[in-house]
Amino acid sequence: MFSTTTYTTRREALKKKMKSGILIFPGNKETGMNYKDNWYPFRQDSSFLYYFGINLPDLYVIIDLDEGKEILFGDDLTPEDMVWVGASEPLANQAEKCGIKEVQPTSKVKDVIQKAKQNGQTLHYLPPYRSRVTIELSELLGFPVSTIGRNYSIEFVKAVIAQRSIKSSEEIKELHKAVNITASMHRHAIKNTKHGVTEKQIAGELQAIAIAGGGNISFPIILTKNGQYLHNHATQARVENGDIVLCDCGAETEMGYAGDMTRTFPVAERFTDIQREIYSIVLEAHESAAAALKPGYRFKDAHLLACTRIVEGLKGLGLMKGDTEEAVNAGAHTLFFQCGLGHFMGLDVHDMENFGEQLVGYNEDLKKSEEFGLKSLRLGKELEAGNVLTVEPGIYFNPFLIDSWKAKGKYTAFVNYDEVEKFKTFGGMRVEEDFLITSGGKELLGDPLAKTIEEIEELKNA
Amino acid sequence: MFSTTTYTTRREALKKKMKSGILIFPGNKETGMNYKDNWYPFRQDSSFLYYFGINLPDLYVIIDLDEGKEILFGDDLTPEDMVWVGASEPLANQAEKCGIKEVQPTSKVKDVIQKAKQNGQTLHYLPPYRSRVTIELSELLGFPVSTIGRNYSIEFVKAVIAQRSIKSSEEIKELHKAVNITASMHRHAIKNTKHGVTEKQIAGELQAIAIAGGGNISFPIILTKNGQYLHNHATQARVENGDIVLCDCGAETEMGYAGDMTRTFPVAERFTDIQREIYSIVLEAHESAAAALKPGYRFKDAHLLACTRIVEGLKGLGLMKGDTEEAVNAGAHTLFFQCGLGHFMGLDVHDMENFGEQLVGYNEDLKKSEEFGLKSLRLGKELEAGNVLTVEPGIYFNPFLIDSWKAKGKYTAFVNYDEVEKFKTFGGMRVEEDFLITSGGKELLGDPLAKTIEEIEELKNA
Repeated sequence: MFSTTTYTTRREALKKKMKSGILIFPGNKETGMNYKDNWYPFRQDSSFLYYFGINLPDLYVIIDLDEGKEILFGDDLTPEDMVWVGASEPLANQAEKCGIKEVQPTSKVKDVIQKAKQNGQTLHYLPPYRSRVTIELSELLGFPVSTIGRNYSIEFVKAVIAQRSIKSSEEIKELHKAVNITASMHRHAIKNTKHGVTEKQIAGELQAIAIAGGGNISFPIILTKNGQYLHNHATQARVENGDIVLCDCGAETEMGYAGDMTRTFPVAERFTDIQREIYSIVLEAHESAAAALKPGYRFKDAHLLACTRIVEGLKGLGLMKGDTEEAVNAGAHTLFFQCGLGHFMGLDVHDMENFGEQLVGYNEDLKKSEEFGLKSLRLGKELEAGNVLTVEPGIYFNPFLIDSWKAKGKYTAFVNYDEVEKFKTFGGMRVEEDFLITSGGKELLGDPLAKTIEEIEELKNA
Repeated sequence: MFSTTTYTTRREALKKKMKSGILIFPGNKETGMNYKDNWYPFRQDSSFLYYFGINLPDLYVIIDLDEGKEILFGDDLTPEDMVWVGASEPLANQAEKCGIKEVQPTSKVKDVIQKAKQNGQTLHYLPPYRSRVTIELSELLGFPVSTIGRNYSIEFVKAVIAQRSIKSSEEIKELHKAVNITASMHRHAIKNTKHGVTEKQIAGELQAIAIAGGGNISFPIILTKNGQYLHNHATQARVENGDIVLCDCGAETEMGYAGDMTRTFPVAERFTDIQREIYSIVLEAHESAAAALKPGYRFKDAHLLACTRIVEGLKGLGLMKGDTEEAVNAGAHTLFFQCGLGHFMGLDVHDMENFGEQLVGYNEDLKKSEEFGLKSLRLGKELEAGNVLTVEPGIYFNPFLIDSWKAKGKYTAFVNYDEVEKFKTFGGMRVEEDFLITSGGKELLGDPLAKTIEEIEELKNA
């Protein structure tokens, strides 16, 4: 946990913005995998962590803005619980650590909410993403389950986004830590992904590093020789010399802060010539986009800059043709780069994604596009100092997409399908790093990790 | 997957038992950790795996017993989905593999259920343990969310329990595999848990072994120097020479079959004298209970036999006193052995736990006890050939329980609290193996793993 002042200060700022009503924070519960009591690893809700820092299941906090009260609801362990899990710190102590003075048993949550409802206070809650929270909110608030998903408080969401989008110096320290654990995972992958190992074998070893780091993985590990599929998870396929492997993974710290990086590397000792060519284009796109980052700059422009570099590079190889700007404007690059350049990162790896990308990554002046490619760009708006984000361009030779667009004659003015055909078994490549936007521009999070062709080959063969 | 005949044969047997109505099988969905689309590893529902073997999210199967129809409901990937995850086998092929002839889109499930409801057919479903399934069943069946948890079909539950309780030879092969991966995890733990490493470091490495095995862990890993707390998970605590470590972990195979073993071992090269004493009692209890297993024998008697051995052993050390049988009848051993001897194991590590322990592990002639100790015995009834179960006695010095019962003067006729006081920082020990009940008695699952003091010390120092 951070210091008590961190949490009280965050809540003071929130309360000032929200003005009236009650704010309902349901913490997360345990979730059964294949029966009720065989649980997935517990993950606390990120906004609950942000405002209270208590990493335990089955809690609620209610902030009553009108009466100026903050109450933590939960139940201490019984002696019998302690037979199974040992002692744990009393909730009163946990509350004190985040500056909450009042603790009540869980059974009282409903009374407090119902009383607020009867008094005509506005009931603010954030959009739930766990069905169990939806059901509980329905019971506590006395509204049908089907209405809970849509009746959340936009005002509350906006206030939380405004706070969580700007990282404090203590959060940045924690993010550095998360990214450094993430970098160790990548170092291990680059060194140990050798001819004959399975994708899952390496993916498991990376998860072990994340767990040893004190937390866990921040999202399901992508480690695949089929990097052309953007979110393809590790399988039992064996990798072989000649394959390239795309590894996109991240650790989250014990406090819940995420790292998220990607490296693409050969299984053999060296990249092949054609792998070097494609990798160089991706790296150039990455470096150009990263170099442009600074407060006031639209992230959408960084995305388009990376697209431009990709088109230029592919033209150089004879895979694309025509005017670069026209190709990007037409969206022809999306045959190779089907997604967005990056996203915010923090207590969620796609920070605050559950609040909706329009509210988190866009604004009144910039609506999220619905076009293929741009619709997967989660962040578009002007950057601010304190933002933390990823930069992750890639080139992906997706055989289904190539076949489908070729058959439809799509983008024939910009794509040399005959040349592209030769790359249908190439795979995909991505390079991803995490940055903090500073008043002067940007700063790389974590210590540098091998990224150029030379550095990666050196690390592989060290 | 097993062969097509396996699945059709299982369903034929089920249909014969159930006679009329429709059987509704909701497959599991993806579950968000900290936002909707950041998923926990997918785990299919075990009964869905048992009858259909399809390990994919977002499916339903409906078996119409009256019309003799079986329909798989689901949606094939769109070309756009393939940008993210690549191709996957069409559902029609997947259905064929498990012998289902009809596939319909997910949007049709509700029509089929509503039509059956209007026709007065009984709607059978199993008790849900995922809230999202509860909400979906509520929508599909047209009953309130609050009624779904209690209106499941007991007849359906009983029919499934009868089938899943008796393992076929192909299931036993898969269980052997799960137990062997589990044994590799233990071998790694015994060899690598050395002075100065953290519990989480080793736990992560064990999970890597489970993942490399093709599946994942079958339940959250217990790896702790505080083994006195029965379900204590790994923490960032460092283990030291002199500590004993309790490791209770298991792998599940790609098909979902679980292993579950426990070993307790010293961090240092050798057990201390007192650790040897307690370990020997636990091992003796384990061996006696295991030796007694055979068809027709009540598992509750194996439990009580283990309790007897524990009391005898602790009397030998001066921690208990009085008549052994009286002590066990009174429950005095529960100060040291607070839980049950074991449980069924199969597609769930606590097999079918979600159906309720009375129905799974007991019967009309034997009701589950509500006494402390026995109420945690998940299995009590007569064993049958084909049952697969764990045997896991232990001795746990829980300081809270010791203080509390000593203060209350509980069991003073059988417990020498002055001696017990000296063990308040000892920790806990458990030995667990998995067995198949055969017509002739029992068979150990998996290849033997170091279990005696000598074997464990030899493995540690190999």
